[in-house]
Amino acid sequence: MAKDMTLLWGSGSPPCWRVMIALEEKQLQGYNQKLLSFEKAEHKSKEVLDINPRGQLPAFKHGDNILNESYAACMYLESRFRSQGPQLIPEGQLEQALMYQRMFEVLNLSDKLSNVIYYNYRVPEGERHDSAIKRNKENLATEIKLWEGYFQKVEVGSYLAGKAFSLADVIVFPVIAYAFRFGLSTERYPKLGAYYNMMKDRPSVKATWPPHWLENPQGGDTLKEF
Amino acid sequence: MAKDMTLLWGSGSPPCWRVMIALEEKQLQGYNQKLLSFEKAEHKSKEVLDINPRGQLPAFKHGDNILNESYAACMYLESRFRSQGPQLIPEGQLEQALMYQRMFEVLNLSDKLSNVIYYNYRVPEGERHDSAIKRNKENLATEIKLWEGYFQKVEVGSYLAGKAFSLADVIVFPVIAYAFRFGLSTERYPKLGAYYNMMKDRPSVKATWPPHWLENPQGGDTLKEF
Repeated sequence: MAKDMTLLWGSGSPPCWRVMIALEEKQLQGYNQKLLSFEKAEHKSKEVLDINPRGQLPAFKHGDNILNESYAACMYLESRFRSQGPQLIPEGQLEQALMYQRMFEVLNLSDKLSNVIYYNYRVPEGERHDSAIKRNKENLATEIKLWEGYFQKVEVGSYLAGKAFSLADVIVFPVIAYAFRFGLSTERYPKLGAYYNMMKDRPSVKATWPPHWLENPQGGDTLKEF
Repeated sequence: MAKDMTLLWGSGSPPCWRVMIALEEKQLQGYNQKLLSFEKAEHKSKEVLDINPRGQLPAFKHGDNILNESYAACMYLESRFRSQGPQLIPEGQLEQALMYQRMFEVLNLSDKLSNVIYYNYRVPEGERHDSAIKRNKENLATEIKLWEGYFQKVEVGSYLAGKAFSLADVIVFPVIAYAFRFGLSTERYPKLGAYYNMMKDRPSVKATWPPHWLENPQGGDTLKEF
């Protein structure tokens, strides 16, 4: 079925992980895939650039259709394979509104996470400032508290947009997992922690768990103080 | 019809403009709306924070459904009012794939535009670096060239995702308009310019043209050198 699909991906990248979860949920196993190394800058290789001119992962193709943005790939897969696997866009108006709001507002969380975790990677040495680091951390702390608050309103065993698993979970979960991987405390953020623990046992999530996280279960501690 | 909708917005903000174009296209005129001033920091007022906890515009409500992210609002409106006005998600697989890819990859363009246009606004004085300004400009120039290239493949009179106007145009056009407002040259980027000129006469776009752009048709010249 999925032999006409190709995914070039990097381990641990939330955008790549989203596409892999969506493919699992839509029962599209068996696609062509290749794990590339960010450290070796393989995302800047010709193989990637031929599909994704920005040299970013994921690079994803279905036949001649190119969908490199994780949101684009997930929405496309749900639209193309609606009746395959669970329906990832709820019918209810209320659930649909909540799904769209959460899945797009998580861009704030992922930006703020990256600004903290990848500060040294993104900002050249001569341009670094303690004041910027402090501000980035404050912005992230405020954002994480907002999400803990959202999850306080989610019933136990429910998902981000209601009783059913949806695209909001496909999109948001890898970002939450990333925060815990970098040391966020499940004690200080119990609702986020409960969601994380429920989601990590979902078959589509287990089947796509970042391989280098499995090899090395101990993550970073950048977010330990949060 | 649209009396149960409320939009708080700022003039010229591409995310606000998207929602307004979508509302026009879906024939949802007559919604409650209030123009707020970024300069007076009205986006941080209680009125906004009650709907959008990040204090950002747009802040948008339909009944009890809150959709503050422009993508969320546009997708929700299309889903809720599919048969009203033109269908904004094409049926064709190819067109749909292209629509999703373009509407999400434009986040790269808007980020890179903001990094250049709002550098002084975003970066406190003591943290500014010429090397960062130079890098931001290079990244933006590369990105703009990529989009000029995309438009070279769009047939004259066609839209971003094919023969029909779609969500890709709703989402991408305000970003392109923004670039021209800040001085991008239609001579140097003729394909982007042709798209801009075609789109600005579309009734939904004309009806929602940023009021302070009308009052003061002369924009900035930050992008004149690009």
